[in-house]
Amino acid sequence: MIFMGRYSYWCADAARMEKAVTSSTEFPQTNARSAWLSDDEMQAVRAHLPIVYVEAVPVRLDGAGRLVSVGLLLAPTPDGSISRTLVTGRVLHGETIRAAVLRHIAKDLGPMAIPRLPVSPAPFTVAEYFPDPQITGFSDPRQHAVSLVFVVPVDGDCQPSQSALDLTWLSPAEAVSPGVAAEMSGGRDRLVRMALSFAGALP
Amino acid sequence: MIFMGRYSYWCADAARMEKAVTSSTEFPQTNARSAWLSDDEMQAVRAHLPIVYVEAVPVRLDGAGRLVSVGLLLAPTPDGSISRTLVTGRVLHGETIRAAVLRHIAKDLGPMAIPRLPVSPAPFTVAEYFPDPQITGFSDPRQHAVSLVFVVPVDGDCQPSQSALDLTWLSPAEAVSPGVAAEMSGGRDRLVRMALSFAGALP
Amino acid sequence: MIFMGRYSYWCADAARMEKAVTSSTEFPQTNARSAWLSDDEMQAVRAHLPIVYVEAVPVRLDGAGRLVSVGLLLAPTPDGSISRTLVTGRVLHGETIRAAVLRHIAKDLGPMAIPRLPVSPAPFTVAEYFPDPQITGFSDPRQHAVSLVFVVPVDGDCQPSQSALDLTWLSPAEAVSPGVAAEMSGGRDRLVRMALSFAGALP
Amino acid sequence: MIFMGRYSYWCADAARMEKAVTSSTEFPQTNARSAWLSDDEMQAVRAHLPIVYVEAVPVRLDGAGRLVSVGLLLAPTPDGSISRTLVTGRVLHGETIRAAVLRHIAKDLGPMAIPRLPVSPAPFTVAEYFPDPQITGFSDPRQHAVSLVFVVPVDGDCQPSQSALDLTWLSPAEAVSPGVAAEMSGGRDRLVRMALSFAGALP
Repeated sequence: MIFMGRYSYWCADAARMEKAVTSSTEFPQTNARSAWLSDDEMQAVRAHLPIVYVEAVPVRLDGAGRLVSVGLLLAPTPDGSISRTLVTGRVLHGETIRAAVLRHIAKDLGPMAIPRLPVSPAPFTVAEYFPDPQITGFSDPRQHAVSLVFVVPVDGDCQPSQSALDLTWLSPAEAVSPGVAAEMSGGRDRLVRMALSFAGALP
Repeated sequence: MIFMGRYSYWCADAARMEKAVTSSTEFPQTNARSAWLSDDEMQAVRAHLPIVYVEAVPVRLDGAGRLVSVGLLLAPTPDGSISRTLVTGRVLHGETIRAAVLRHIAKDLGPMAIPRLPVSPAPFTVAEYFPDPQITGFSDPRQHAVSLVFVVPVDGDCQPSQSALDLTWLSPAEAVSPGVAAEMSGGRDRLVRMALSFAGALP
Repeated sequence: MIFMGRYSYWCADAARMEKAVTSSTEFPQTNARSAWLSDDEMQAVRAHLPIVYVEAVPVRLDGAGRLVSVGLLLAPTPDGSISRTLVTGRVLHGETIRAAVLRHIAKDLGPMAIPRLPVSPAPFTVAEYFPDPQITGFSDPRQHAVSLVFVVPVDGDCQPSQSALDLTWLSPAEAVSPGVAAEMSGGRDRLVRMALSFAGALP
Repeated sequence: MIFMGRYSYWCADAARMEKAVTSSTEFPQTNARSAWLSDDEMQAVRAHLPIVYVEAVPVRLDGAGRLVSVGLLLAPTPDGSISRTLVTGRVLHGETIRAAVLRHIAKDLGPMAIPRLPVSPAPFTVAEYFPDPQITGFSDPRQHAVSLVFVVPVDGDCQPSQSALDLTWLSPAEAVSPGVAAEMSGGRDRLVRMALSFAGALP
């Protein structure tokens, strides 16, 4: 019964979304069919498959390309608390990794942010989030997520938008300080140190 | 009704799989719940979410660590034809990337293969497969797959197993020859050249 | 006596160069003492030590960060012929890798070029040039050079300057065409393909 | 005259070194012409050119390729004190990077060590050593060295040899502990953390 409900929902939703997708100009080259999945359905899928995520560590560079500061967002976490975090989100069906990174940066840092995506499609690391924090040190109570993580220099005017409450630019030393690390969850303090290490800027 | 059917299937299957998983020594540390998804269900999910894959380019090295040859499998493709291909497969729910790479290597190259996984969890590249080959050059008629690709030195005795019909070790020059490239599909000829390039062995 | 001889030469030179360096505003933060080495001395050192080089593959990106074109210079080679080449040059004593890359880009592409150095100090590959082309496929008749190679997106107005005769922006397909490859020497056609591969843009 | 002087010195030295090199079994496959440089000459060159180094962080992996421990040497430093350090040394004229890494590992870890060089010739980072520790955080009182750094899994029996007094295998947590970090010099404690970060094993 439960599932029949879901299936009919999918069908009804499919017709509705088909129209939405057709009339949408937002993702001209992507077929954002994953929008068909309701919250309940997404929750069901999350129990059975790893979900593809992208994560961006926004940074400011000086004229010689050296990392000067790291941008950390203040945002609600899945468990309802407030936490410092990075730009992150799902990759939709039909969406390229690059498009997903750009979409989530625009969503979190505002439309005036000018990100400089790395030339290579390879992430500098892959963070594997499991409900159990013992497996990799990265944890997400909701799901098994495979997150491709990029360090992204961002020019322009960044304004926290949508769900983010604040955006703070910290020096590498501040970003790895115990106080700031304690305000991050799911292992993201470690991810910040890994990003700084990759950039040659780990204090 | 359909879903109830599916749900009961899941429950029945769950009992069956639980036993299989419990009695299996193959994936001691992974919770292979995604195996609960039937082919039909997997097909439904594939239409709505990108699926996480790993891909390994098996290579032989000489004593100084230089790439000497590349291992290509001969295997049936999703469309039914026979094609040269790489070690590839899904990442299961609860399974780490490393465990998935090792499992697929054991599956395709046999139990006597001794793979040397790279130290870093970052893939050398990410291949994004779409049904439409125009988007990235990598295509899969069944799905949108995000594939983390690794170059994996393999020692020991490799024997094509399971679905693979044959395994051939080719020199870099042979591996990029037009004849061999024509026998690969979905853009995997390009992936082989990218792997050789990463290894400093592109002819 | 031998050393005194050499030292007097160096000392005389030092006074001359000290002045040049002091009056120069070109490398404010580097101590360009290697400029003290005359051509003859540099030639002598080249016979006994590997020399550190940097190399940059200038590229243009589209809005999503995808590689659109590669910039190739037309310049005289060490053997006197004209050849398509990349931005390249020595790292001076006291100079950082980043400063060297920026200096050579400014030298070859002009002062209006705006390079975006990668965040990471790690090169995407290391090209080892030997007089003997058999060793690595990269050759330089003058020396053993260890070249750290970077793919560098360049904005702004690029004008070939100094020794470069011309600068041409080519699509990936053009850049790897046999005609263009034949106009490159020392293995740089292969380096261009490796850069495209790293960027996910190898045709 | 000056150059003749220098050359006669080199020629005399060459005869002496030729003998040394011929009778040596230490560098079987390399053309160790840089060995012709006497200590005084090397010192003179060091004042004028950056010197190419390789550095290896020896690690032990478990069956799944995860980093389990890091090997740190106890050895005299250039300034005469004793310090924990990594496998490190110059690249000789005519020697490939791979050959240099293998030679220095054999020199420091003994002939029974079985290193697994990474497939890619690109180092995971480049450490730039300057006499002034302010420039990059990596310092060497003797010289400007450009060091290509690799994480190298080592199997077999490792025995500290030649100048190394001891070899200790430490867990990642031990390797980054303040006590151990204080025993390293020139910024190598940071290099160890960077290597662990690259390997996904930074605590």
